[in-house]
Amino acid sequence: MKANTHTQTGTPARIALDVMGSDNGVSGIVAGGALAALDFGASAHITLVGQSTQIESALAALEQRPDNISVHHAEREITMDDSPSDAVRMPDTSVAAGLKLLKSGQVEAFMSPGNTGAVMAGSLLTLGRISGVNRPAICALFPTSGLRTRPVLDVGANTSCKPINLLQFAALGSAYVSAMEGIESPRVGLLSIGEERSKGNDLIVKSHELLEKSPLNFIGNVEGRDILSGDVDLVVTDGFTGNILLKFAESISPFLTSRIRHQVSTNIFSRIGAGLMSPFLRRLRRAFDYAESGGAPLLGIDGLVFICHGGSSPRAIKNALAIVKKMIENNVIGAMRKEMMNNTALHVDAERRMSGQTHEQETSLESSHG
Amino acid sequence: MKANTHTQTGTPARIALDVMGSDNGVSGIVAGGALAALDFGASAHITLVGQSTQIESALAALEQRPDNISVHHAEREITMDDSPSDAVRMPDTSVAAGLKLLKSGQVEAFMSPGNTGAVMAGSLLTLGRISGVNRPAICALFPTSGLRTRPVLDVGANTSCKPINLLQFAALGSAYVSAMEGIESPRVGLLSIGEERSKGNDLIVKSHELLEKSPLNFIGNVEGRDILSGDVDLVVTDGFTGNILLKFAESISPFLTSRIRHQVSTNIFSRIGAGLMSPFLRRLRRAFDYAESGGAPLLGIDGLVFICHGGSSPRAIKNALAIVKKMIENNVIGAMRKEMMNNTALHVDAERRMSGQTHEQETSLESSHG
Repeated sequence: MKANTHTQTGTPARIALDVMGSDNGVSGIVAGGALAALDFGASAHITLVGQSTQIESALAALEQRPDNISVHHAEREITMDDSPSDAVRMPDTSVAAGLKLLKSGQVEAFMSPGNTGAVMAGSLLTLGRISGVNRPAICALFPTSGLRTRPVLDVGANTSCKPINLLQFAALGSAYVSAMEGIESPRVGLLSIGEERSKGNDLIVKSHELLEKSPLNFIGNVEGRDILSGDVDLVVTDGFTGNILLKFAESISPFLTSRIRHQVSTNIFSRIGAGLMSPFLRRLRRAFDYAESGGAPLLGIDGLVFICHGGSSPRAIKNALAIVKKMIENNVIGAMRKEMMNNTALHVDAERRMSGQTHEQETSLESSHG
Repeated sequence: MKANTHTQTGTPARIALDVMGSDNGVSGIVAGGALAALDFGASAHITLVGQSTQIESALAALEQRPDNISVHHAEREITMDDSPSDAVRMPDTSVAAGLKLLKSGQVEAFMSPGNTGAVMAGSLLTLGRISGVNRPAICALFPTSGLRTRPVLDVGANTSCKPINLLQFAALGSAYVSAMEGIESPRVGLLSIGEERSKGNDLIVKSHELLEKSPLNFIGNVEGRDILSGDVDLVVTDGFTGNILLKFAESISPFLTSRIRHQVSTNIFSRIGAGLMSPFLRRLRRAFDYAESGGAPLLGIDGLVFICHGGSSPRAIKNALAIVKKMIENNVIGAMRKEMMNNTALHVDAERRMSGQTHEQETSLESSHG
């Protein structure tokens, strides 16, 4: 099922890493890239994209400069304050440069810690959409009780969705899970407020109908509680609900930290316990900490683009790069293209045929910042 | 500002407690009611509503039967499987009996561990709405870093909302926080996917406009991360988004438990640490465990109705009864009635005037189960 062309042929996975736009400056991202390069060895090559003088001084500060790393200069940085539409008009940014490397085939993936909205807008402009996809989605990887992560999409690219968008998110997510985990028919859940098909708002009721008629392994509506339980392989939602959920989930880690601090400072036994348990408590917090464990592939873009968190540690950057490397090796893009090409039931014409309606739809640049 | 008529005059706060419909049978709820009665002493009277033989045998099994407790017989039970519309047609249920006691003034509040949709439907039918309110809301009390809880509403009564509904939720929530915590002008946040007024779906953008023109202390849009941080006094959302968020939040406690178990079983130091920290870990889980810490007042109903969790321990029932007692003593219902009467800007006519639109709206029985 998996292509695995890279690992089989020994061709290194080539990844462009945007080192600009991080909350903590260039050095942390460069250190993460170098850590990954050392770890991956001959199986990958990392191209650091950004201000070359800053990158070189960050590399010089490291103990060891890996061989499988190179530098690609880009003059400017997109900040968190730049709007997506302003950002795409700047030609000399690290995001524009990285996307150009991907478009021209010099790398197979682009990863950025930057402004999500700007990266999505730039990706749409430079790489376009996979044929048949109306709107790409930001896919968040949520933790589960079973220690695996589960994709939830969309988490912010599309504030207002139509049923066909949710159907396509389901198809893209299925192809992703299938290629990454070798699951033949991933179980797709539709996020709603009850299991019955009648539960939910108008969008959900109509999307349920469309998903039921699709070739996907649709298990029906799931509720908020089913995300962390991991009883489903991917969860589909609109970008409004998904973004609120993601931001809420991201706030659990600081909430736990503040509760732990408060408690530990008031009780001697807890203080001793906390000392012994600190590696565990760190991991517990990390499970919800997207800066540490996560990252978000943009699914539906015709190229591998991955957003990592702007506040990521070098170790977290290395972990995110390992996911990106696996996405290249398992040919996730090929799987998504194939799914969208073979299943014409996923196309907007199919929805028209089914519902007897006509509606126009264009991908907008409407996106979430960070 | 606060009325506090009960504590000042020494009149006991009278609460009807539905002991049926719990996941764990009658005895746990009865034990919780008795615990509360002993704790409250002369300041409250608890009426246990349900199968009197079952209640009497549960009371007989207790060490001490408090004086300030009485039994009100009701033959039938509403189960979690009964639909709201079926449930309201059953006249001899504990929910119907408890609501009748409240309507006739024999008690000042009704608390039930049962089927949320059925309790909401019965409350609408028996008690009606506070004058000016189009749709009542289920209000969840979320934990915050600052150890206080924060209301989030609606969490499931209204799947599809209009801007006027969100405005009224904000007014009801403000009156609740004001009466319960003595805060003059509680800060109202509107749940969205960015702080800018343009961010969010159509409902949110229009609700933002309406809230800005209202007499409430509207601080603007808040994001998913702002709920647990406690930087806002109440959060307003539609029942679809709110219910997904609530169910997700409820699943954090079992998720943490499963992670803790997994970790503790694999590491000796963690096992010792966990032993020392176990009271703390319990409290940490409890912060997200609505069975333990929470409960949900129905705001907009013309009477104090409170939903507690069906799996609650006696201690949790006692805690929920303490909140209900405070709602009586601080005259929360009076505060909400006053807010809706004095601020005509909250009425549906005001929205029509502002938007130049006309729309019909009737309260439906559409609700969430449990």
